Amino acid sequence: MGARETVEVTGHLMDSGILSRILDDIRHYGADYAIDELDVGHEADDPSSARITIEAEDAESLQRLLMRLQTRGVNQLDPGEAVVGVAERAGVLPDGFYSTTNLETRVCLDGLWYDVENPEMNCGLVVAAAPDGGTRVRTVPLSEVEVGMRVLVGASGILVSVPCQSTGDGATLAASDGDAVEKPQTVVVRQVADGMRWAKADGKRLLWVAGPEVVHTGAVPALVALIGAGFVDTLFAGNALATHDIESSLYGSTLGIDLSKAQGVEHGHEHHVRALNTVRKSGSIARAVAEGAVTSGIMHGLVTHDKQYVLVGSVRDDGPLPDVYTDVVDGQRAMRAEIHDIGYCVMLATQLYSVATANILPARVPLVCVDIDPRTVTKIADRGSNPGRGIVADVGLFLEQLALELVPDYRRA
Amino acid sequence: MGARETVEVTGHLMDSGILSRILDDIRHYGADYAIDELDVGHEADDPSSARITIEAEDAESLQRLLMRLQTRGVNQLDPGEAVVGVAERAGVLPDGFYSTTNLETRVCLDGLWYDVENPEMNCGLVVAAAPDGGTRVRTVPLSEVEVGMRVLVGASGILVSVPCQSTGDGATLAASDGDAVEKPQTVVVRQVADGMRWAKADGKRLLWVAGPEVVHTGAVPALVALIGAGFVDTLFAGNALATHDIESSLYGSTLGIDLSKAQGVEHGHEHHVRALNTVRKSGSIARAVAEGAVTSGIMHGLVTHDKQYVLVGSVRDDGPLPDVYTDVVDGQRAMRAEIHDIGYCVMLATQLYSVATANILPARVPLVCVDIDPRTVTKIADRGSNPGRGIVADVGLFLEQLALELVPDYRRA
Amino acid sequence: MGARETVEVTGHLMDSGILSRILDDIRHYGADYAIDELDVGHEADDPSSARITIEAEDAESLQRLLMRLQTRGVNQLDPGEAVVGVAERAGVLPDGFYSTTNLETRVCLDGLWYDVENPEMNCGLVVAAAPDGGTRVRTVPLSEVEVGMRVLVGASGILVSVPCQSTGDGATLAASDGDAVEKPQTVVVRQVADGMRWAKADGKRLLWVAGPEVVHTGAVPALVALIGAGFVDTLFAGNALATHDIESSLYGSTLGIDLSKAQGVEHGHEHHVRALNTVRKSGSIARAVAEGAVTSGIMHGLVTHDKQYVLVGSVRDDGPLPDVYTDVVDGQRAMRAEIHDIGYCVMLATQLYSVATANILPARVPLVCVDIDPRTVTKIADRGSNPGRGIVADVGLFLEQLALELVPDYRRA
Amino acid sequence: MGARETVEVTGHLMDSGILSRILDDIRHYGADYAIDELDVGHEADDPSSARITIEAEDAESLQRLLMRLQTRGVNQLDPGEAVVGVAERAGVLPDGFYSTTNLETRVCLDGLWYDVENPEMNCGLVVAAAPDGGTRVRTVPLSEVEVGMRVLVGASGILVSVPCQSTGDGATLAASDGDAVEKPQTVVVRQVADGMRWAKADGKRLLWVAGPEVVHTGAVPALVALIGAGFVDTLFAGNALATHDIESSLYGSTLGIDLSKAQGVEHGHEHHVRALNTVRKSGSIARAVAEGAVTSGIMHGLVTHDKQYVLVGSVRDDGPLPDVYTDVVDGQRAMRAEIHDIGYCVMLATQLYSVATANILPARVPLVCVDIDPRTVTKIADRGSNPGRGIVADVGLFLEQLALELVPDYRRA
Repeated sequence: MGARETVEVTGHLMDSGILSRILDDIRHYGADYAIDELDVGHEADDPSSARITIEAEDAESLQRLLMRLQTRGVNQLDPGEAVVGVAERAGVLPDGFYSTTNLETRVCLDGLWYDVENPEMNCGLVVAAAPDGGTRVRTVPLSEVEVGMRVLVGASGILVSVPCQSTGDGATLAASDGDAVEKPQTVVVRQVADGMRWAKADGKRLLWVAGPEVVHTGAVPALVALIGAGFVDTLFAGNALATHDIESSLYGSTLGIDLSKAQGVEHGHEHHVRALNTVRKSGSIARAVAEGAVTSGIMHGLVTHDKQYVLVGSVRDDGPLPDVYTDVVDGQRAMRAEIHDIGYCVMLATQLYSVATANILPARVPLVCVDIDPRTVTKIADRGSNPGRGIVADVGLFLEQLALELVPDYRRA
Repeated sequence: MGARETVEVTGHLMDSGILSRILDDIRHYGADYAIDELDVGHEADDPSSARITIEAEDAESLQRLLMRLQTRGVNQLDPGEAVVGVAERAGVLPDGFYSTTNLETRVCLDGLWYDVENPEMNCGLVVAAAPDGGTRVRTVPLSEVEVGMRVLVGASGILVSVPCQSTGDGATLAASDGDAVEKPQTVVVRQVADGMRWAKADGKRLLWVAGPEVVHTGAVPALVALIGAGFVDTLFAGNALATHDIESSLYGSTLGIDLSKAQGVEHGHEHHVRALNTVRKSGSIARAVAEGAVTSGIMHGLVTHDKQYVLVGSVRDDGPLPDVYTDVVDGQRAMRAEIHDIGYCVMLATQLYSVATANILPARVPLVCVDIDPRTVTKIADRGSNPGRGIVADVGLFLEQLALELVPDYRRA
Repeated sequence: MGARETVEVTGHLMDSGILSRILDDIRHYGADYAIDELDVGHEADDPSSARITIEAEDAESLQRLLMRLQTRGVNQLDPGEAVVGVAERAGVLPDGFYSTTNLETRVCLDGLWYDVENPEMNCGLVVAAAPDGGTRVRTVPLSEVEVGMRVLVGASGILVSVPCQSTGDGATLAASDGDAVEKPQTVVVRQVADGMRWAKADGKRLLWVAGPEVVHTGAVPALVALIGAGFVDTLFAGNALATHDIESSLYGSTLGIDLSKAQGVEHGHEHHVRALNTVRKSGSIARAVAEGAVTSGIMHGLVTHDKQYVLVGSVRDDGPLPDVYTDVVDGQRAMRAEIHDIGYCVMLATQLYSVATANILPARVPLVCVDIDPRTVTKIADRGSNPGRGIVADVGLFLEQLALELVPDYRRA
Repeated sequence: MGARETVEVTGHLMDSGILSRILDDIRHYGADYAIDELDVGHEADDPSSARITIEAEDAESLQRLLMRLQTRGVNQLDPGEAVVGVAERAGVLPDGFYSTTNLETRVCLDGLWYDVENPEMNCGLVVAAAPDGGTRVRTVPLSEVEVGMRVLVGASGILVSVPCQSTGDGATLAASDGDAVEKPQTVVVRQVADGMRWAKADGKRLLWVAGPEVVHTGAVPALVALIGAGFVDTLFAGNALATHDIESSLYGSTLGIDLSKAQGVEHGHEHHVRALNTVRKSGSIARAVAEGAVTSGIMHGLVTHDKQYVLVGSVRDDGPLPDVYTDVVDGQRAMRAEIHDIGYCVMLATQLYSVATANILPARVPLVCVDIDPRTVTKIADRGSNPGRGIVADVGLFLEQLALELVPDYRRA
């Protein structure tokens, strides 16, 4: 063993089990550690802090472990100056590049500290000239790397900070607390409603991520009411949600097919393809709404209330709808452009789009994931850095309750 | 092959896929068949009927296949007279005994037809003297067989009839229709509410079967409201539901433990044992309520509204509560005594007690099974003869919605 | 009601419950029917056939119902001649276009019958000049429609045929038979092994579809052995499978991280991004193998044994690997190019890529879907037209058993 | 606040997250704390210890919190002398009784320390005269409490010790580490095989707990081979496992029903009742084996190899078999009598019997829980004090692999 470094971490280390995870990481990377100092305060409310010296096999292993530990909010005691390399190939970062977390991040360059503009995980950090002539540091995903970009290498000169979690307000009932099924669900719905109200009151935008089960479970009226009441600013989804929603609007009643028998939808139903063809003919969902081809539903609600949506394709898509980004890298870019000022995020019944969104969302945004499948809920709620909350529940009943909480006169209208 | 018999079945054979299942059964029993006649009517609403000749390896195989087919509503064209044997040992039926279905059943003895008093599956049929001197035929489970009982042997002389399913009213959305998740859940809740209202209007009693998740998901207030509004006549449950309910009543607030953190309950929490000890000290739940030791919750609601309950033990029980039948055969007997005049049955988040109840419930009683786990829902909804409906949903949100439908001023109170 | 048509269907209608589903479809489309003739044969092995007259509200509804029924193998008694329209816009089919099934399909044009070249569901049928000057009919997905293409409209002149299912060999244990969990799994593994051997003996190619759990459950050695033994001809997967496989090859041992602790992989692990960067630097997986950067694992096995693979991106991807199609429509095109001569298809632990593959695979190809989640298995096995089989099992143990069956000296090597 | 006490805990507090859980408990009980001392050692392998002063609202709350904390291995710094009360009623413990953990426990009476004979959770501790005239302390469940028993009250004078977990040998991959699905399953099977070999080498007995899916997944041959090879000493199960096993032995082949189509079993199959009647006629399973009525299967294997089994009834039972304890309290007593000298415990596909067994098993016994349903696995593996390991897998494939590991010439025989 040769390379060593002293790191520190602060917060409620004991309460959150974070110290255990840090030590797990160190062991997983084959390194040794010594706890130099551990201050847990004296009273229950005191913050705690730890100082740990890590010894890894070599300098490279050490740098990688330091980056890993930053995902837990662990910083070097003496971070020093950031080291800058240069990208020599488009789409490729220099060896030893710094791999980002989605925590608030600061970088020290020439003795000055810069905030990273758009924290996102699994990116590189690029140093560039700001419009005002100064220096800016921002995250860049692999696919956006350009030749000549100045990229941070190693963990030096980089500090992260974990969002403080208001343990008092119950916002952190992560799935890892135990069996997420066994929660008083109506209380949880009320807490989600409060989270959304606070975010709006704070001038923030609300982001929804949704899968097609929202349509199949009959939750369209509830979601449309929430759109109308201003609780949806932007929606991330795939071709399936939008197509099933439009299909349900186009064919739900005219052919006598009520939603309670909509199970055939998945199995090659021609309605599906015909709905796709109809919108493709119009050229876009907005034009199909304008032309009167689509007169109800979620997508109609978003268009008529002037809300945003990003639809990104997947390999299982028929069609797809003209609004869908068929290139997933383009789709990610469009999603990134929409996550500014998000104050709350609700993820409904889609593992694919929920993970995609969690990948690019800063850790400071509270999120809730609702899914009937506990595996999806665990996957999202366990990501560690977001104050995520998992709810194992049917999205139909969840949205009905949420609309009852948030939309005055819902059901009476 | 030697033994053959002609059978018939009527109903909407095509609509329900029942004919396919009948032919599957015949093949599974290694028998051959020829369809002598198949009348599917001409219009969509015509009933259909089939006449099939079956050929089995020998007489015993044939008799067993005939019994199997009766679970599908298939009768012999010429049933003949029932054959009566005698039980020679307590708890043991004669060889070749007739194994019952839970369908309406009639038996021909000496040229007269008798209705079976209490249709239940997997029992023997016993012929006895009626109080008025006549003859009665009733189901007797293995454990209740007494020496000398006159028991039906073979399938002769026995006819069953399948309850007619009102396909028009949507009451038969069985899980086997496809993915039970993808249903418009608020519509389904409304249909359940209607089913319960109709049963009450018809003078019938409502049976509930519930597991402890009803408490853990925070549904106690909703269920208590439903009890108060007269929508619960009798409850079947285990020691866990009653204990967690009482524990939540006793310790829910006094120790600052709100339900949203109740996950520890399962893991050896001392509250649990202490709640058990408290009620054991009183001698019964009713006495604990009378003494003021238990002042709220589901069990309190049942006691104060003079409703019935049957608690049956299981091997995982601590305690148990003094009201619990520790002998499961005694418990089944108590459940049987409570299923008279049931007009609707709701099963919530318990596979064990739901299957136990489905075992003894006549096929004519509509039932709904609500569980977050699709496997439990499928197990109950797929039993074939009951007009069962499966709902994959969180019981907390389901009960909240149901109370909103059925209890005037719920939530405003 | 005005439009009517007589249709027919043959096969083992009773055995498979297909007639019930047909009548369900008719009701779902709000049409009426009369069964003119139903011949179920007399013996168990006789094929059955039905002739049904359907009456729909208008001609358009009727045409759509006829297309829907073709997914069940139902043809018009008198199909007549196909009607040809013209695509007036790129990516848009003419109104009333014929929506395809994945069954063998024939089309009648000018009195001659043509086989559709590449049956696939949810496409249009395009009539074009064959290289030899004759006429060819092939499926074209919406996204590939070009202006001026001659496209079939309505259901006239089109016949489909359902693959005959060898019920004797047990190949059709669909999940819909009941609870797919409760199968003797080692027997099932042997049947899959037989299916693969038969396909190879028949000169066919084997298609695998796999998700990243194949890596996480430790099944890489088993799958590599199967590749080496010639039981994998082409693999469809996403960026995640390939990246985790390569990550495990690159970092599995050098950093002391054994697979039994690989849970961190999903949660933003920097190994993941670094593996991506390494291959991006090489330019392709094949070049990374050639350069000695990747020396083991599934992708290495495919490259060194000269097998095919198609990797298609999804919105949740980091990177992605240079071999990944980031445009999902391009990805689908690449998959279509690889499904010629497939004789057996195995789908492992991925709902997304399994559905994508099932969408384009002809109904005649037997497929098996293995997943720990019963919902995915049901979704694939219930698609109706493929002789699909669902296995609810851990893919790690499944592949280990399959390698023991198919690869001589596996484990002894 | 008034009552306070200083407690201490030692072990690898950081590694296992145990300190976080302790502080969670304190907060859940509404108490305050101050960490007086926290020694985490300096190197990674040093044990850690903490000393915490707790302040609760009153003496009773404090005592209860102290008992709760003992389930985490937390002891009072100065335990003092145990306090003895007297049971005044059969089946009821005195107020404030000490509620046990399943950890090794010592009790201080009159200055002397006694080991508790049979650690089990949720019991009282009874002081009695030993056969040799001395004093013994043992656990007594509520149902076994007799009038006049001397019972410990409060947490004074009681110390527990947590089994040391050999983190090096991988024995502690609890489900809580993350997604239990994503484990290299064949490695895990090998570790289970090793655990069983070590236990046997150590002269210990092996306990199996199994549900009926063991039969349905075709694992009977594998389990029979393991019984023959000496790897099953005692089996805990319900009526269903034994009945399905015997039914499969009686009717599996004679009626042409192969296991691959056994799905009908659950749905009221008459085979089931007939198998029950057959064994009831013999009087016991052993006599049915002796008489040649049952000639194969799991129960046959246990009887012929002279192994033990405890079958306990449940409310869903038909029959039941004559060997089944219909009284669950009797059943628990019989299980307790069989858990002496257990060195390893395997739980297969049954939540009910697995929880029942975990309730009475000392914390020192390693256990593994195999189930296709992650909820069951989490429930067992998360109990905290046992070195439990969860495996989400199909039991059929798991047992096949385990037999391949443990039984020489398995499959070749």
